[in-house]
Amino acid sequence: MIKVGIIGATGYAGAEIARLLHFHPQAQVVWYGSRSYIDEKFGSVYGNFFKLVDAKCMDDNMEELAEQVDVIFTATPQGLCASLVNENVLNKVKVIDLSADFRLKDVSVYEKWYKIEHKAPQYIDEAVYGLCEINRDSIKNARIIANPGCYTTCSILTAYPLVKEGLIDTDTLIIDALSGVSGAGRGAKVANLYCEVNESAKPYGVAVHRHTPEIEEQLSYAAGRGVLLNFTPHLVPMNRGILATEYASLVKKDGKLPSAQDIRAAYEKYYGKEKFIRLLDDGVYPETRWVEGSNFVDLGFKIDERTGRIIMMGTIDNLVKGAAGQAVQNMNILFGLDESMGLDLVPCFP
Amino acid sequence: MIKVGIIGATGYAGAEIARLLHFHPQAQVVWYGSRSYIDEKFGSVYGNFFKLVDAKCMDDNMEELAEQVDVIFTATPQGLCASLVNENVLNKVKVIDLSADFRLKDVSVYEKWYKIEHKAPQYIDEAVYGLCEINRDSIKNARIIANPGCYTTCSILTAYPLVKEGLIDTDTLIIDALSGVSGAGRGAKVANLYCEVNESAKPYGVAVHRHTPEIEEQLSYAAGRGVLLNFTPHLVPMNRGILATEYASLVKKDGKLPSAQDIRAAYEKYYGKEKFIRLLDDGVYPETRWVEGSNFVDLGFKIDERTGRIIMMGTIDNLVKGAAGQAVQNMNILFGLDESMGLDLVPCFP
Amino acid sequence: MIKVGIIGATGYAGAEIARLLHFHPQAQVVWYGSRSYIDEKFGSVYGNFFKLVDAKCMDDNMEELAEQVDVIFTATPQGLCASLVNENVLNKVKVIDLSADFRLKDVSVYEKWYKIEHKAPQYIDEAVYGLCEINRDSIKNARIIANPGCYTTCSILTAYPLVKEGLIDTDTLIIDALSGVSGAGRGAKVANLYCEVNESAKPYGVAVHRHTPEIEEQLSYAAGRGVLLNFTPHLVPMNRGILATEYASLVKKDGKLPSAQDIRAAYEKYYGKEKFIRLLDDGVYPETRWVEGSNFVDLGFKIDERTGRIIMMGTIDNLVKGAAGQAVQNMNILFGLDESMGLDLVPCFP
Amino acid sequence: MIKVGIIGATGYAGAEIARLLHFHPQAQVVWYGSRSYIDEKFGSVYGNFFKLVDAKCMDDNMEELAEQVDVIFTATPQGLCASLVNENVLNKVKVIDLSADFRLKDVSVYEKWYKIEHKAPQYIDEAVYGLCEINRDSIKNARIIANPGCYTTCSILTAYPLVKEGLIDTDTLIIDALSGVSGAGRGAKVANLYCEVNESAKPYGVAVHRHTPEIEEQLSYAAGRGVLLNFTPHLVPMNRGILATEYASLVKKDGKLPSAQDIRAAYEKYYGKEKFIRLLDDGVYPETRWVEGSNFVDLGFKIDERTGRIIMMGTIDNLVKGAAGQAVQNMNILFGLDESMGLDLVPCFP
Repeated sequence: MIKVGIIGATGYAGAEIARLLHFHPQAQVVWYGSRSYIDEKFGSVYGNFFKLVDAKCMDDNMEELAEQVDVIFTATPQGLCASLVNENVLNKVKVIDLSADFRLKDVSVYEKWYKIEHKAPQYIDEAVYGLCEINRDSIKNARIIANPGCYTTCSILTAYPLVKEGLIDTDTLIIDALSGVSGAGRGAKVANLYCEVNESAKPYGVAVHRHTPEIEEQLSYAAGRGVLLNFTPHLVPMNRGILATEYASLVKKDGKLPSAQDIRAAYEKYYGKEKFIRLLDDGVYPETRWVEGSNFVDLGFKIDERTGRIIMMGTIDNLVKGAAGQAVQNMNILFGLDESMGLDLVPCFP
Repeated sequence: MIKVGIIGATGYAGAEIARLLHFHPQAQVVWYGSRSYIDEKFGSVYGNFFKLVDAKCMDDNMEELAEQVDVIFTATPQGLCASLVNENVLNKVKVIDLSADFRLKDVSVYEKWYKIEHKAPQYIDEAVYGLCEINRDSIKNARIIANPGCYTTCSILTAYPLVKEGLIDTDTLIIDALSGVSGAGRGAKVANLYCEVNESAKPYGVAVHRHTPEIEEQLSYAAGRGVLLNFTPHLVPMNRGILATEYASLVKKDGKLPSAQDIRAAYEKYYGKEKFIRLLDDGVYPETRWVEGSNFVDLGFKIDERTGRIIMMGTIDNLVKGAAGQAVQNMNILFGLDESMGLDLVPCFP
Repeated sequence: MIKVGIIGATGYAGAEIARLLHFHPQAQVVWYGSRSYIDEKFGSVYGNFFKLVDAKCMDDNMEELAEQVDVIFTATPQGLCASLVNENVLNKVKVIDLSADFRLKDVSVYEKWYKIEHKAPQYIDEAVYGLCEINRDSIKNARIIANPGCYTTCSILTAYPLVKEGLIDTDTLIIDALSGVSGAGRGAKVANLYCEVNESAKPYGVAVHRHTPEIEEQLSYAAGRGVLLNFTPHLVPMNRGILATEYASLVKKDGKLPSAQDIRAAYEKYYGKEKFIRLLDDGVYPETRWVEGSNFVDLGFKIDERTGRIIMMGTIDNLVKGAAGQAVQNMNILFGLDESMGLDLVPCFP
Repeated sequence: MIKVGIIGATGYAGAEIARLLHFHPQAQVVWYGSRSYIDEKFGSVYGNFFKLVDAKCMDDNMEELAEQVDVIFTATPQGLCASLVNENVLNKVKVIDLSADFRLKDVSVYEKWYKIEHKAPQYIDEAVYGLCEINRDSIKNARIIANPGCYTTCSILTAYPLVKEGLIDTDTLIIDALSGVSGAGRGAKVANLYCEVNESAKPYGVAVHRHTPEIEEQLSYAAGRGVLLNFTPHLVPMNRGILATEYASLVKKDGKLPSAQDIRAAYEKYYGKEKFIRLLDDGVYPETRWVEGSNFVDLGFKIDERTGRIIMMGTIDNLVKGAAGQAVQNMNILFGLDESMGLDLVPCFP
């Protein structure tokens, strides 16, 4: 039985890890770390766990944790994980970091977009970007997993096969994305109060959102050349869900646009055997409700012959495939378990 | 492996049975009945099942079903189940009816409140009211289970121990309840459109709601005398959840009101060992979010010394404990399985 | 032109006063007081006022305000108004207090339920409870108006005629109420975050909510005797709206329950000429959507012959009739204007 | 006093016209046409009008209407207006059509995108596209106003000055838009039920939405050349509001991108005196909540130096500026009234 510690267990992503691991046959949470709720029962802070979890919240002590557990999930603000990891810790436990600390390979890009100094740049190189469907093999032996961001997971997976296959012109790539409010975290801010968010939609972080360089870096690897793109996130009034709508000009071959079959074939090539990626039928587009509560990525696309563009669409549950679910998937890979263990969930609708 | 047929699989309750049974270790849905979607793929009607269920929807043929399955769930409008059951069917399969057809023992009460003629009154007597925590023993050998209504499950379980123990004066019992919109079903009605329901709360069925006689009948058994009460349902803008707030005058003993400990003791007496019933800590009241997606019933109470009344509060997920979850729980009992098989779910929040 | 100052202009109720007065033909806001946003443009804090209001937010200086305006609205937490009023202020301006400071005539009741010391008990007697439809005449010459609470406005007006006419037994009166989230104010609290409130319903303040003594006091005046009752508020996921569902046993006359006509006649007697109170047709019950954005109170009722009880239902918009609208109505009365000036609003649906 | 007839008064747009005209000082609705609710009181179908409107709903009889009123609003499905107008009607009354029948100048484009035959192509030429801020002068003397679509109003106004001034490359223009659910109308469809729409976001009509050619035609006039673009609408769970996020490459001048000031100057040039268009401050982006219930268009933009693109963002209330409000604005222009008469509304928040 894998012993698990969660730092940041009372944030939405941390609590979702707890939910997913509760009936995981090979893992057990033994440390619910939450600086804000030390000594309060986890099942009182999150009433859904009442009678299911008796443990009290603990402080964020990574050194002590490293003695007690096999894997640590850090579901904490940027900078915390980097400030806590060290050789002693990494020699004892696996670290799956849900923050952005180890996602960007270029520390100057990190410091520019996040506007904080990186406290452990020496581990950036060895950290593996934990986008399971793409980096499965390198994940297996990593000590630090940089668990991808929610927008990035959805944005990258939606475009990846077409970028990889050179079917789209990455210079024209534009990603317009929607997110439910849980992505904003559980901090007490006026901007996230019910009445401020309900019955409204808004763009934010326009041209400066921190997931931009993360998407660009990963798609650059796929393209084999640098990718610059526009990414615009929007907040919409729902608890969970991310929808990415992506636009790009198709690359003509012999003067002809790729067909829908060509596109479908590219998706199938990379995702045909992926359990958590569902390429929808022709004419069907993703809706966030169909993935809610699950680790699925739903994908669809439409070619517009008039403009020569393709519209690619993807959805995930931001707290599952966009955070906790992918983190558990990474844990499964790290420990040699069936990758979908504990993640066989039917999306919950309505 | 128990073979399951669902009549009405594309209603919200029917689809929730499919969700709960999808990973049930001892049961398998082999017939997704849906008159409205015959020959359409179930996973297209309910996109959450895409790639999970390949079956197409079938007609509602109970005779044929009886040949093929071990248990039939009828998640259909009032009257349908009663019009389909017969001795041939009941000799072959168990029937778990989620409609009201077999809930009321007095056929005239049924016909008065539901305003339809009962087509199979000969089976009313043998049908067992499937409120598992109360009627577990009689469920075991039943042929027909009358699966309780959503409001009724919550309303009865919230008051039952206090009624049974004579702690409250049932003549003063008032039940004020809230429901999410999935309780209204998936029929295309203007009244249930998003814009009609969103940003509004309303009472309905005031003094005439059909769950009233069902609650009264069951609490009468507990009280050992007839119970008449007021039950007022309200629709509030959320997908799932029922909250019952119940008021009654406490019965004084030796001129003294029962204490909070007395009340707690009564709840513990009946529910202390129940896995799905959670009596909350003092001063904590149920919230629907803490049970969403699960089979839990959360209970709380408050004594008002000023008025001599107790306020009892209970919550359930109307589609789980209020419909599909309890139906699966009944199936487990009927087939001698662990009662919680397939129902070990952590409520999904947020 | 009446000059208006608002203390607490950036709370939801304060901003709603600003909205209602923006096109009021006889009043003009000249002071947007907001300690949290001093020197910020009001139209930046509340983007709906962008280009409509150029003023910046000012500090809460009641003495200076008294020099500059004719009427001060205090839309602030309990205790602030009482700590600021004095003879100098009251000799110069009218004060309409939206907090509870002057609503309860018995200072010890105030201090018990609100758990703070009252700083200006000497003004409690002269303050007039500003429930316009009931106290219109005494409002005219008041210096301090205690603007009623949102739950109380709705709860009192729903039952008042029947209490006044002795048609119901006030010992049996139970009020179960629902509120939208704007009633909880704009403070940055985890409990009011979108994800905490959305998709959930919960009771709170059970048997201890501060509006209880306020309702009891006013209904006691109507009854001519002390009234004790149960009041249970619930939070439901919508921005605006209050729905009160009230239960009481009808008083028999000559062994007979009052008829629906008797009840209707009582409502008509008190509200027949009231512009803002709408008694709905038989069989129609109030829904919060039909009053949203307006100063209306919608009322309906149902007699349950089986139990001898009546169910009375009322709805208001908590920010309008439950706060800002009634405050403006009080201002109109105080200054001898048409009572509905600036309040002729069609509820906004959907 | 202008006499007004509404055909389709019980749809959301029709009822919103009724709301806006209720206190209009120079117009009065005398005919509430609604084939579905003939002889029912309008104030019963739309409870917000209870006690405000006593009239009953009438049939859709344009000939008779032409005798009784000065202006007819048709808030009906595509095709109806075209099938009813004729010379007799147009000689007597002004027609403001909220459907698409007279928006597209090329009848073959209409028939291709709407898949219905146009019944009155002879009036297409004389009909004026009622986008008030652009076509004010030609509106004055029109007989038929083609009131613009909701997405189109928002999409066009957001980009218009930059297209007109040649600041953006229209070949790169991509419009990604979100809409609240009232845009889908009041028809009883499963897809628009509360539980189907709530807690979900979805794209629809991808590359085939009917507002596409309307946007293209109008922007082509502005550009002085044909414009083809991608337009992708999304449904998000809120009642009202449209948000358009638009992307285009900026046109360099002397090798330099236009500056934010250049962009702002272009917006000011066309909208500087427009009462209903608010260009937000730098760094502030539109949110639908700030325009809800009003006729405002809020605009913002951001230049991304990295990609050379501009992101333009606009919001409207789809039922007001996107339908009924603009229709009333057109009526005001047609009858020589102050253009904002009856439309001076503060957006209602929260």
